[in-house]
Amino acid sequence: MRIAFIGLGNMGAPMARNLIKAGHQLNLFDLNKTVLAELAELGGQISASPKDAAAASELVITMLPAAAHVRSVYLNEDGVLAGVKPGTPTVDCSTIDPQTARDVSKAAAAKGVDMGDAPVSGGTGGAAAGTLTFMVGASAELFATLEPVLKQMGRNIVHCGEVGTGQIAKICNNLLLGISMIGVSEAMALGNALGIDTKVLAGIINSSTGRCWSSDTYNPWPGVIDSAPAARGYTGGFGAELMLKDLGLATEAARQAHQPVILGAVAQQLYQAMSLRGEGGKDFSAIVEGYRKKD
Amino acid sequence: MRIAFIGLGNMGAPMARNLIKAGHQLNLFDLNKTVLAELAELGGQISASPKDAAAASELVITMLPAAAHVRSVYLNEDGVLAGVKPGTPTVDCSTIDPQTARDVSKAAAAKGVDMGDAPVSGGTGGAAAGTLTFMVGASAELFATLEPVLKQMGRNIVHCGEVGTGQIAKICNNLLLGISMIGVSEAMALGNALGIDTKVLAGIINSSTGRCWSSDTYNPWPGVIDSAPAARGYTGGFGAELMLKDLGLATEAARQAHQPVILGAVAQQLYQAMSLRGEGGKDFSAIVEGYRKKD
Amino acid sequence: MRIAFIGLGNMGAPMARNLIKAGHQLNLFDLNKTVLAELAELGGQISASPKDAAAASELVITMLPAAAHVRSVYLNEDGVLAGVKPGTPTVDCSTIDPQTARDVSKAAAAKGVDMGDAPVSGGTGGAAAGTLTFMVGASAELFATLEPVLKQMGRNIVHCGEVGTGQIAKICNNLLLGISMIGVSEAMALGNALGIDTKVLAGIINSSTGRCWSSDTYNPWPGVIDSAPAARGYTGGFGAELMLKDLGLATEAARQAHQPVILGAVAQQLYQAMSLRGEGGKDFSAIVEGYRKKD
Amino acid sequence: MRIAFIGLGNMGAPMARNLIKAGHQLNLFDLNKTVLAELAELGGQISASPKDAAAASELVITMLPAAAHVRSVYLNEDGVLAGVKPGTPTVDCSTIDPQTARDVSKAAAAKGVDMGDAPVSGGTGGAAAGTLTFMVGASAELFATLEPVLKQMGRNIVHCGEVGTGQIAKICNNLLLGISMIGVSEAMALGNALGIDTKVLAGIINSSTGRCWSSDTYNPWPGVIDSAPAARGYTGGFGAELMLKDLGLATEAARQAHQPVILGAVAQQLYQAMSLRGEGGKDFSAIVEGYRKKD
Repeated sequence: MRIAFIGLGNMGAPMARNLIKAGHQLNLFDLNKTVLAELAELGGQISASPKDAAAASELVITMLPAAAHVRSVYLNEDGVLAGVKPGTPTVDCSTIDPQTARDVSKAAAAKGVDMGDAPVSGGTGGAAAGTLTFMVGASAELFATLEPVLKQMGRNIVHCGEVGTGQIAKICNNLLLGISMIGVSEAMALGNALGIDTKVLAGIINSSTGRCWSSDTYNPWPGVIDSAPAARGYTGGFGAELMLKDLGLATEAARQAHQPVILGAVAQQLYQAMSLRGEGGKDFSAIVEGYRKKD
Repeated sequence: MRIAFIGLGNMGAPMARNLIKAGHQLNLFDLNKTVLAELAELGGQISASPKDAAAASELVITMLPAAAHVRSVYLNEDGVLAGVKPGTPTVDCSTIDPQTARDVSKAAAAKGVDMGDAPVSGGTGGAAAGTLTFMVGASAELFATLEPVLKQMGRNIVHCGEVGTGQIAKICNNLLLGISMIGVSEAMALGNALGIDTKVLAGIINSSTGRCWSSDTYNPWPGVIDSAPAARGYTGGFGAELMLKDLGLATEAARQAHQPVILGAVAQQLYQAMSLRGEGGKDFSAIVEGYRKKD
Repeated sequence: MRIAFIGLGNMGAPMARNLIKAGHQLNLFDLNKTVLAELAELGGQISASPKDAAAASELVITMLPAAAHVRSVYLNEDGVLAGVKPGTPTVDCSTIDPQTARDVSKAAAAKGVDMGDAPVSGGTGGAAAGTLTFMVGASAELFATLEPVLKQMGRNIVHCGEVGTGQIAKICNNLLLGISMIGVSEAMALGNALGIDTKVLAGIINSSTGRCWSSDTYNPWPGVIDSAPAARGYTGGFGAELMLKDLGLATEAARQAHQPVILGAVAQQLYQAMSLRGEGGKDFSAIVEGYRKKD
Repeated sequence: MRIAFIGLGNMGAPMARNLIKAGHQLNLFDLNKTVLAELAELGGQISASPKDAAAASELVITMLPAAAHVRSVYLNEDGVLAGVKPGTPTVDCSTIDPQTARDVSKAAAAKGVDMGDAPVSGGTGGAAAGTLTFMVGASAELFATLEPVLKQMGRNIVHCGEVGTGQIAKICNNLLLGISMIGVSEAMALGNALGIDTKVLAGIINSSTGRCWSSDTYNPWPGVIDSAPAARGYTGGFGAELMLKDLGLATEAARQAHQPVILGAVAQQLYQAMSLRGEGGKDFSAIVEGYRKKD
C-alpha cells in the first residue's frame, strides 16, 4: 500500500519504520532532513510537501506535536487537503483538542475525504515495539479500513465513536491518570509519614478499593515496583511535560464545554509547579517527590 | 471462647451475631437496650459495663463510632482496662485516628494487655455476610491469636504492621478512594460533555492507565455498571458522610504528621459541599451529580 | 476628531455615545443594525466594514467580545489593517489574551500603525457614566495620544507598559479578585456557621489583615453592605460568566507561560460549577451561595 | 490591680512586662524558670501553680500555645479553676479552637467565674510595643472590665460577641489572609512571567478590585514594598508555621461545623508543602517563592 506518513518525530519515526517493515511503500514528509534520510535508506520515498505526499498515496497518516501543526499540515496551500485524492482514507494520530480534530475533519469532508483521529498511548517504547494503543474516532467504514494498518503499529485498536472521540477518550483517560497518580502519591507519602511499611501499604491498596494502575503497575514510591520509573530515578516512562500537555488539553476542552474539572485543574497546576522546579523532564510519577522531605 | 463485644451499632451488631453463630459465648455491652435484647435472645450475655464484659472474657473486641468513644470505653472508671485480665488479647475495630489507637494501646500495655487495631471495610452488607476486610495493626503474636476469630467475621484479614497501622492502611486507602472517585466523576462527566458514549469511555479507561476500582467496579455514571449504586439512585453502598469522616481522619493525621495532602484536602471539601447540599446520605459516588447539569 | 469605533455591544455602544457627546465624528461598524441606527441618530456615520471605518478616521478604537473577533476585525480582507492609514493611532479595548494583543499589534506595526491594548473595568454602568478604568498597554507616545480620548470615556487611565500589559494587568487583577471573593465567602460562611454575627465579623476583617475590596466594598454576605449586589439578590454587578471568562484567560496565559496558578485554577472551576448549577447569570459574589445551606 | 498571668512565652512575656510597667502587681506562672526570674526582677511575683496565681489575684490572664495547654492550665488539679475566687474576671488570650474556648468557659461558669477569650494579632513586635489587637469574646459586663487592662497591652480592643467569638473572628480573618496572600502571590508571579513590571502591577491592583492588605501593605514580591518581609528575605513577620496552625484551626472548626472551605483547605496544604520544603520558619509571604523559578 502506498501510504503518506507526515510527522517523523520521536513517535512518528518508529511508527513509520514499522510500516516500512510491514511492506508498505511510504511517502514521507518532515522538516527534519536527518530523519528523512534515515527512513529513505530503509526504502521510504521523500516528498517535497504534505501535498505531494498525500497526492501520491492511497492512505494518509499524520503524527504531529500540536493542534497548530495539524491545522497547517492539512490546511496550508501545500497541505494534505490540497493534494489528497477524494476518497483517500486519512487519519491523524497526533494528540490535540477534539475541536481541532473535528474542524480539520470537516474541511477534509468538504474535499471528499473521510478523516479520523487516532491518538496513541504507549510512548516511544510502544512506538518502537509496535505495541501502541490507538484510540480511534472515525466512521465505521473508515475504522474498518484503518484497523489492519494501525495493527501493524499497535496492539490495541479501539473504536471510540465518530471523529473527535479518539481525542476525547485520550484526554479523559489522562485526566484521570494525572489525578490518580497524585492520589497514590499522597496516600503513599501519608502512610510513610505515619509509619506503615510502604510495600505493605501498596499491597493493601492494590487488593482494596484504592486499587488503580498508578498504584499496582506504576507505583511512584521507590522500592514498591521494580519495573516502574520510581525504581530508576524516574527516567523513561511518560514525561511530566507530556502529562502537563494532556491536562492542558483536558482543562481547555472542559472550559469550552462549560464543564468543571476541579481535581483535574489542581492536578494540572501541581505538574506545572513540578515543571517550574525544573523536574518536568522526569517521569510524571516523580510528582511524589513534592510530597517527601528532601534527604 | 468467651468474648467481650462492646459497641453493637450498624456494624457491631451483625459482627457479634456472626460470632454467636460460630459458637462463641459473647459478653455484650452497648447503650442501646433494644439491640442488647435482640442479641441476648440469640444467646449473648448482657454486661453492666465495658469493665464487667472485659473481666468475664478471654478476648475483647470493640466497635465504636469515633475516637472519643474508644477513649472512654477503654479508659473510664468502668472501662475495659479497669476490668480486663492481664494477658487478654484485645482489639478495637473502630475507624479512628492512628494516634488514639496507639495511645489507648499504650495504656493497655501498661496493664499487661496486648491491644491491636483492626478497622474494617465492606460496610454493613459485609458485616452481615461475614465478608469484611480487616486491616490489622498488632504484634505478630497478637495477630496470630486474632486471625481465626476475625475470620469468622470477615474474608480478608491483613496484617499491616504494629498497632496503629491498621488505621493508617484504612485512611490511606480511603484517601485515595475519595480522590479516585472524584477523578472518575470528572473524567466521565467531561467525556459526556464532549460527546463520547460513556459506556465506551468507561471501557477504554478500564483497559488503560486510568483503570481503577472507582471506574471498573463502582463507576459513578448511571448506565455503566449494573451493580453499582449509580444504577439504583445512589442508595446503599458507602455513604458520603462516612467518606467524609475518613477523609477528616486522613487530613487530620496528615496535619499532625506535617504531611501535605493537596488533592485529599480538596476531595474532603467537595464531599463536605455535597453534604451541605443535603446529599450526604447518598452513596459517595453521587459526588458525580455535582458535575452534571440538573435535568 | 474622526474616530473609527468598531464593536458596539453592551460596552461599546455607551462608550461610543460618550465620544459623540464629546463632539467627535464617529465612523461606526457592528453587525447589529439596530444599534448602528441608534447611534446614527446621534450623529454617527455608519461604515460598510472595519476597513472603511478605519480608512476614514484619524484614530481607531475597537471593543470586541473575544480574541477571535479581534483577529478577524483587524486581519481580515476587509479588516482595519486593510484600510487604516500608516501612522493612525489605534487601540483595542477588548479583554483578550496578551498574546493575541501582541500578535495583532505586531501585524499593525508592519503596516506602520502603532496599536495598543486598553481593556477596561467598571462594567456597563461605568461605560454609560464615563467612569471606566482603562488599563493601557502602549508606547509612551501612543499613550500620550490616547489618554485625552480615553478620558472622555473613563476616569482612570493607567499606563501599564508596552502593548499587552493592559491585558496582563487586567487578568492578574481579576485572577486575584476571583480568588479573594471566594476567600471572603468562605470566611463569612465559616464565621456564620460557627456563630459570630456576620456584620461584626466583616467589621473586624475590614480593619484587619483580611481586609480587601471583596469584603469592605462588595461583601457577598447579605446584610453586610447595602450597596453590594448581595443586597439585591446578586443582580447587576459583574456577572459570574464574565469572571469565568477572565479566569479562563488568566489560566490559559499562565499555561502558555509555564506558570502555576493553583488557587486561581480552583477558583475558575468553582465559578464553572456555579455556572453549571444555572447561576452564571448572577453577580460573581453569588459564589457564596454554594457555601450556605439552602433555606 | 493584682493580676495572675500564666504563660510567659514569646508573646506572654512582653505582654506581662507591659502590665508590670503599667503598675499592676503580677502573679506569674510558667514552666520556664529563666523568664520567671527575669520578670521577678521587674517586680513580678512567682507562683507555684496556676491555682496559686489565680487564688491570689483579682483578674486572671492566660497566654498559652495550644488548646491542650489551655485545658490543663484551667482544669487540672492545680489549675486556675481550682484556685480562682468566684467572681474573678478571667480571660484566655491563646489562639485555640472556639469549642475549647466555650468548653473551658463553661467549666469556669460552673465555679462562678466569667471567662472570656481574647486572641491577639500583631505578633511579638506588637506584644512588645503594646500595639496588639485583641479580639474579645465575652459578656458585655466582662468586656467592660477587661477593656482597660487589655488597652495597656494593645491598641485595638474589639468586642466580637459572646465567649468563643474572639477565636472565631481570628480564625476567619486568618483563613482569608492565608488565601489572599496566595492569591496575591499567584497574581504577581503571573504578571511577572507575562512581562509586566511588578511595581506597576501592584500599583494597579492596589487601586482596583484586587486591592487587599496582602498586596498593599505586605506584598510578597521583593521590591514592591520596602517595609514588608519580602524586602528582608522573608525574616520577621508572621511565620508560615503560625499561619499553618491557624489554618489548621480554621479547617478543623469548619469540619466540626460541616462547613466547606475549599480554597482554605488548599491554602493550608500549600503552606504545609512549603513547610515540608524546609521553609516554614520564614514569613508566610514567602509562599510566593513556590511560584518563582529558582535563580
